[in-house]
This record gives sequence, structure tokens and C-alpha cells, in this order.
Amino acid sequence: NDEAIMSGQGTLALEMLASQPNLDAIVVPIGGGGLISGIATAAKAINPNIKIYGVEVTGYPSVYNAIHNLPDVVGGSTIAEGIAVKKPGALNLEVIARLVDDVFIVAEEDIEEAINSLITIEKTVTEGAGAASLAAVMANSELFANQKVGVILCGANIDSRILASILMRRLVRKGKIVRYLIKLNDLPGALSDVSATIGKWGGNILEVSHQRMFGAVHVKDADLHVTVETRGLEQSQEILEKLIELGYAAELLKD
Amino acid sequence: NDEAIMSGQGTLALEMLASQPNLDAIVVPIGGGGLISGIATAAKAINPNIKIYGVEVTGYPSVYNAIHNLPDVVGGSTIAEGIAVKKPGALNLEVIARLVDDVFIVAEEDIEEAINSLITIEKTVTEGAGAASLAAVMANSELFANQKVGVILCGANIDSRILASILMRRLVRKGKIVRYLIKLNDLPGALSDVSATIGKWGGNILEVSHQRMFGAVHVKDADLHVTVETRGLEQSQEILEKLIELGYAAELLKD
Repeated sequence: NDEAIMSGQGTLALEMLASQPNLDAIVVPIGGGGLISGIATAAKAINPNIKIYGVEVTGYPSVYNAIHNLPDVVGGSTIAEGIAVKKPGALNLEVIARLVDDVFIVAEEDIEEAINSLITIEKTVTEGAGAASLAAVMANSELFANQKVGVILCGANIDSRILASILMRRLVRKGKIVRYLIKLNDLPGALSDVSATIGKWGGNILEVSHQRMFGAVHVKDADLHVTVETRGLEQSQEILEKLIELGYAAELLKD
Repeated sequence: NDEAIMSGQGTLALEMLASQPNLDAIVVPIGGGGLISGIATAAKAINPNIKIYGVEVTGYPSVYNAIHNLPDVVGGSTIAEGIAVKKPGALNLEVIARLVDDVFIVAEEDIEEAINSLITIEKTVTEGAGAASLAAVMANSELFANQKVGVILCGANIDSRILASILMRRLVRKGKIVRYLIKLNDLPGALSDVSATIGKWGGNILEVSHQRMFGAVHVKDADLHVTVETRGLEQSQEILEKLIELGYAAELLKD
């Protein structure tokens, strides 16, 4: 909520437009609102037709709510800590209401997806807030089709364990790491049979656990949970079918 | 082993020296040897005093061995697949013997460390081979002290699961994720006591497992394995002391 900070952050738009004068839009994460205020002011001074979009995360739509006269935000846990702001600056809010074309709300999962895309495609690490712009573009891809869009990756202060977790969770979401539940006779050779089949069809076993005590497991049976890395859902499904063909009561666990 | 490829890859040195004319050295990963042959030729033509260093990984020192008349390499598993080459090109070898100042051999762990540094400090993702140059500089930091060194990050085709694993393994190496073995009376309240202590002293419990059957565990006791995230070894040690003060037989597991 400080004009000098807004001005300083606005120079980012000057640099972007110097490098890419034909941008149709710039998408900017909104925390307190200083960054987008500066960028909107600078960019629209150079090109009044450029669209400026803001991005907030589901739990913290404070600017969206202020603009639309909705109640204050509640908060909660988010991966985008850098934009988890409950109350935007009044000075910023005035500029945003005047110059920003729209504010997108992105989900936590959209942000995880964007962090992943930046790592796997752009080879760039961002924090949750830093990936929010790309998350908004990916979640609204029709709106941005065939446009030149500038996205601000405004931070990369992310914990290694969170980053590792995001990478692994995405493999799970894409069906590249799956869990099977397989009913086994609790006898020698059963695990060998199952693991040979999974290996033969290209699955890489990451973890195995037996469950013999809880639920409806017969005293001479075991529930086998096997975590497997595959090339994707199709191969995971194929492995499941081969296990069933072999006579095992097997299923792919959803969560 | 192709002069056109060597020339093309050598343009990298032209770009580097155009951008930073005062480089004292360039460090280049060696796979087949084309990249370093091109870079050495181009860089030394511009500045005969510049040092050109090659980097190979422990299991695949094929150029190092060829230059020093040592036996052929054996191979094996490596994180630096991109430079895991058993036999360098003869054409490249001639250029390397003539123009390259030295060849460093880096360990797998050095490469993991370099991948981590690039992610956490530079916010850049590289594959194992891509991080080999930085690994060599970090492992030979005295040699490179006060020098301007160009490192070639020559690839970023790394599997998400491997990357996640590298991030987590480093937290373990730095003592930021540790495992305690705690001897418990197998009675109500014991886990609560232990977890309260760990939490109070700032440890974040990631995983808990009980072991009651194997080894020298008394029938009424349990071995508790607790995986904990801390700020580092000092805090991990402090938590250990608090557990011991509380009367538990506790130890920090090394591996």
C-alpha cells in the first residue's frame, strides 16, 4: 500500500513490454495488490488496449471479494502463501478497480499443476504464489488461446519437501504411480507370482505392504497393497487385467 | 565423433565469451566428447589462456582413462546417464588430449548435491549430466576460488520421481529429516508423550512405525521408529536429548 513500491514493481511491465511489445495480456498474482497496481499502471500507459488480469487463490479471494462487494475472506491452508492475504491495501484496491480487467480465482490443484509444468517443461522452480499466473492461464486456456500472454513468476521460495511432494502427487494424479489392492492366499510363492506379473508388464514396484488383521480378511488370506510406477493409466489398467486373468482378486485403488 | 557436431556445439563457447569475455575457465561434461572438443577449440581460439576442464562421473571415466592409459571403464548405474559413455570418439579424444587442461571425476553424491544447489539457489532444473560441471566446481572449490568460471548445464531431462528422491535424500544428508529409534513400554500414553516432546521442540513428525516382533524387543515393549523433519542436525540432536531427559532410551539412526 505504498506508491513507491507500486512504481518500483511497475518497472517489471516496462521490461516485459520492451522485450515483447506485442503482448495481448499480462497475468499477475495478487497478494497485497502492489505488484498488479504498478504493472497495470505502467502497462496501460504504454498500451491502453493491453489486458491486465489478477490471480488469487481459492482460500484468499480478498480483492475479488472487495471488488464484488462480497464478505471478507476466511483463509486456511494454501500452497500459495505469498498471495495468502486477507486484506488488500486500500490504495492498491483503487488502482485495481480502475485498471484491472478481471481477477481469476485458482484452485490449489491448478497451482500444483502449474508448478509441475514449470519444472518439467520450463525447467524453472517457482513457489505456489509464483506459479499462480500460469495456473490461471492453464485453467482458462480458451480465453487465452492464440494470445501473447505475459505471466509473472513472482517467487521461488519453496521448501524442498513440499516440492518433492508436489512432484510425487502429480505422478499419482496422472496414474503414473498407482496402488493395487490384491487378495492373496497367505502362502509361499504368492507375492512372487504377483510381482513377476507386474514386472513382466512393465510396472516398477515401489512399495509392498501386507494387511492381515483388519476388515474382512480371512485368517488364511492377506490383503496386499502394492505401489507401482507405470508409464500411465493405460499401462496401470493393463497390469490390473493381467493380475485378474491370473486369478487374483485385484483392484486399482482410487485414493 | 563428427566435426560438424563439434563445430555446432562450439558456438556455445562463442556465446558464453561474447556475454562474459573475462572467463578464466569453462567446465564441460564429457559424454562422447563432442561438446568439449567444440568448446575447447572455439574458446582457446579466442583466448589461448582460458582453461578448459572436462567432467566425467565415477563409473564412466572413459576419457580420463584413455588419456592416462588406464583400462577401459566398467560402467554401472549412474544418475548422470547423459555422460555415461564407455568409449569416447577417436576424433574427439585427439582434440581433448591437445586442448583440455584437465578432466575431473565426480561422485554420484557430488552430482546430487549440484542438482540440489541448482534447484534451491538458481531455481533451475538439470539432469545428472547437466549438473556435472557445477558438481566438479563445488568438489574442487579451492582450485576455482576467485575465478570466473563458466559451467555448462547441458540437459534437464530428469524423471520427476528421481528429482523428488534427490530433494528428499538431501534433506536426510543435511540432518533435516532424521529417524529416531525409541524404546517404548507398549502401554497407553507412551506415543503421546514422545510425540508431544518432539513437537514441543520443533520437530514435525512425518512417519511413525512400531516394531514388536524382531530383535531383542521385550514382549511388553516396542521399538518405535519416528521420522522427523527439523531445521537441521543441531535441532535433531536437541530433540534427542529431550527424549533421553524424559527417560526414554532413544537414539538417532545413522542410515
